[in-house]
Amino acid sequence: MEIYDWHTGPYPARVRIALAEKNLQSRVQFVSVDLWKGEHKKPEFLAKNYSGTLPLLELDDGTLIAECTAITEYLDALDGTPLLTGRTPLEKGVIHMMSRRAELELLDAVSVYFHHATPGLGPDVEIYQNREWGFRQRDKALRGMHYFNDVLKKQPFIAGEAFSMADITVIGDLIFAALVDLEVPAACEALRAWHPRMQERHSVRNRVTMSDPTLKA
Amino acid sequence: MEIYDWHTGPYPARVRIALAEKNLQSRVQFVSVDLWKGEHKKPEFLAKNYSGTLPLLELDDGTLIAECTAITEYLDALDGTPLLTGRTPLEKGVIHMMSRRAELELLDAVSVYFHHATPGLGPDVEIYQNREWGFRQRDKALRGMHYFNDVLKKQPFIAGEAFSMADITVIGDLIFAALVDLEVPAACEALRAWHPRMQERHSVRNRVTMSDPTLKA
Repeated sequence: MEIYDWHTGPYPARVRIALAEKNLQSRVQFVSVDLWKGEHKKPEFLAKNYSGTLPLLELDDGTLIAECTAITEYLDALDGTPLLTGRTPLEKGVIHMMSRRAELELLDAVSVYFHHATPGLGPDVEIYQNREWGFRQRDKALRGMHYFNDVLKKQPFIAGEAFSMADITVIGDLIFAALVDLEVPAACEALRAWHPRMQERHSVRNRVTMSDPTLKA
Repeated sequence: MEIYDWHTGPYPARVRIALAEKNLQSRVQFVSVDLWKGEHKKPEFLAKNYSGTLPLLELDDGTLIAECTAITEYLDALDGTPLLTGRTPLEKGVIHMMSRRAELELLDAVSVYFHHATPGLGPDVEIYQNREWGFRQRDKALRGMHYFNDVLKKQPFIAGEAFSMADITVIGDLIFAALVDLEVPAACEALRAWHPRMQERHSVRNRVTMSDPTLKA
């Protein structure tokens, strides 16, 4: 399998964490797509992923799977024990809901803020910006942090009693939020306590160096 | 189970179609939430679904599942034969990718157009509008129709050889597009041919009347 991504990207981080949680790192080759040069918006990449986003999984037979949740769904199902996306109907439903909510209310909101209300990836890549919309989305993300803080007051993980794809999505958000200097409000004590616990996971800690072959041995 | 929804809503349609595809209609009670009165943005509904969106599934034990894909995931897994969301890792990956893409490039884009660049649900509900962003999203949706047309030139269904959650998402889009007078471009012949084929399905045809108890007998 090949993964097209960028080593420090917040969305790529989600799939890297999933790979490590499933112990699949050794089965993957990473192909670097330079976000800062806008390589993900060039025709040759768009032919592989219409939405022009990273990461992208290419299977050995050439099948292309884009979108973090879809790639995670694929990887998680390979060993027949889908702990990240849920084993029972109830687990699946709740994990998918919380993961989607974490995109909608946090990660995608921070992404829009970055691309629209900051210099983003620079003028060559950000050819259209809507600053007002960007700032609205930043405020939405900050409200979202309070929501997920409330969730974590009642349970140890985003979707309940176990680590899942929903935690990975919120981790992706906090990676992106840090990149754009958006701090988790001090009042969000449960979210602030959960975050270092997540950083302790091997899959989260080693995500950036995962694609460095000199560090693999 | 209870489903909170609005009988003509495009997002509710997605779960209604999934229910009928899985033959689960008789196990569900519908609770009407009046979109046009903004009931989905009132505190009592927001306490059930933070994002303030329909539909919402409430299980008999009080568990709440929001987001169409998450509800579909739950319903589809109940009988152990998840035809809508995929049985194998590959099916799961491709269906989830195409369904997410249909949200991103079509349905959510049309929704933003409706809420931001048209009167939407009226001034009491649409308390903030960003018209420029709304029109950008309309244009994105029109480009998306061309993309999905290209997909359907090569295969009979959105995610390949079989009907799936990805088709349901595109059906939801075309329901919404029709509500806002956004026509599928004439050049999109494959998409225009696929659409009436979908309308022939029992699940799609009877989605609006599904919640009418006088029609259930």
